[in-house]
Amino acid sequence: MEYSPSIEKLIESFEKLPSIGHKTAQRLAFYMLDQSKEEIKEFTDSIINAKNNLKLCSKCFNISDTDPCNICSNPKRDESIICVVEDVKDVIAMERTHEFNGLYHVLHGSISPMNGIGPEDIKLKELLTRLSYGNVKEIILATNPRVEGEATSIYISKLVKPFGIKVTRIARGIPIGGDLEYTDEVTLAKALEGRSEI
Amino acid sequence: MEYSPSIEKLIESFEKLPSIGHKTAQRLAFYMLDQSKEEIKEFTDSIINAKNNLKLCSKCFNISDTDPCNICSNPKRDESIICVVEDVKDVIAMERTHEFNGLYHVLHGSISPMNGIGPEDIKLKELLTRLSYGNVKEIILATNPRVEGEATSIYISKLVKPFGIKVTRIARGIPIGGDLEYTDEVTLAKALEGRSEI
Repeated sequence: MEYSPSIEKLIESFEKLPSIGHKTAQRLAFYMLDQSKEEIKEFTDSIINAKNNLKLCSKCFNISDTDPCNICSNPKRDESIICVVEDVKDVIAMERTHEFNGLYHVLHGSISPMNGIGPEDIKLKELLTRLSYGNVKEIILATNPRVEGEATSIYISKLVKPFGIKVTRIARGIPIGGDLEYTDEVTLAKALEGRSEI
Repeated sequence: MEYSPSIEKLIESFEKLPSIGHKTAQRLAFYMLDQSKEEIKEFTDSIINAKNNLKLCSKCFNISDTDPCNICSNPKRDESIICVVEDVKDVIAMERTHEFNGLYHVLHGSISPMNGIGPEDIKLKELLTRLSYGNVKEIILATNPRVEGEATSIYISKLVKPFGIKVTRIARGIPIGGDLEYTDEVTLAKALEGRSEI
């Protein structure tokens, strides 16, 4: 094949992105070339600006243009409830529910001895510091329902209980629209365990 | 939802790309933020450079960093055969076969009276100019097998025949791996019409 170097480089760039194969990369590359210089500048600027402007909120460690972030600095949010998540993307997922009005704490990982990640490698100390201020009434543990997430939740609950703060864990069960038949036994066991009266 | 403006802008940017939905855009945005500033610069530069460097080859109208393009300027390519295609992407598709060693001519469209595109709106005059130099022996018409592509091919063949140049059309038929049962009748008719002795 005799591509032009600039095209080849452009297609390669898109191919490096996750879930983008060669054909899609090629389509995206030619789409880009069809855009005006202004549109291209807007696209590349949005990437460069995001990288330059975004920082971690010094309170909850969510990613944000401002410090504290727009959630921590929103006076309408309930400061007495903190939802603990592993990742910035989990904040977005929680916000999408429109059901949570408290603050967050992003751990930036989960305890995973297998991968050499201990409690000191995630934002746990910072969580305890926040709790020590005394106005938090409930901690909702929303780590992922995997081995590491569960272990992290248990670890945190043991640390937090001495503060006299209520510690809850989000329910694990059958997803809405899911099928009992195709649900794995661990999820089903958790769903049974977490059953509530109706 | 309370996203940071920079993230929101970044996700929106990716969402504008073809075949990228909201979830993929979000994944790409966070993937980008995880990259180093150097990697981000490499990515955005590849787009900006491609836009700035690429031009049309003045001979075949393929897109290229150089003029003439690397195909037209390759002394190993056979100058006596020209493959006529509608689009730059078709050159790449043809090159991928590794079966064609001649030159190309990119029309940048096809005749489509319905869309107000006439013969003068595509690079047809330029093709005739190339043919008038006299060293072309065969024209392979590789326009898309749709109404516009077929019409364009017929139009070109009528124009080119007076030059005494052999005009061929790529075969239309059942794709390799295809199923007779699921092949539409027009394709099947073309396949029958284009049958060859074995």
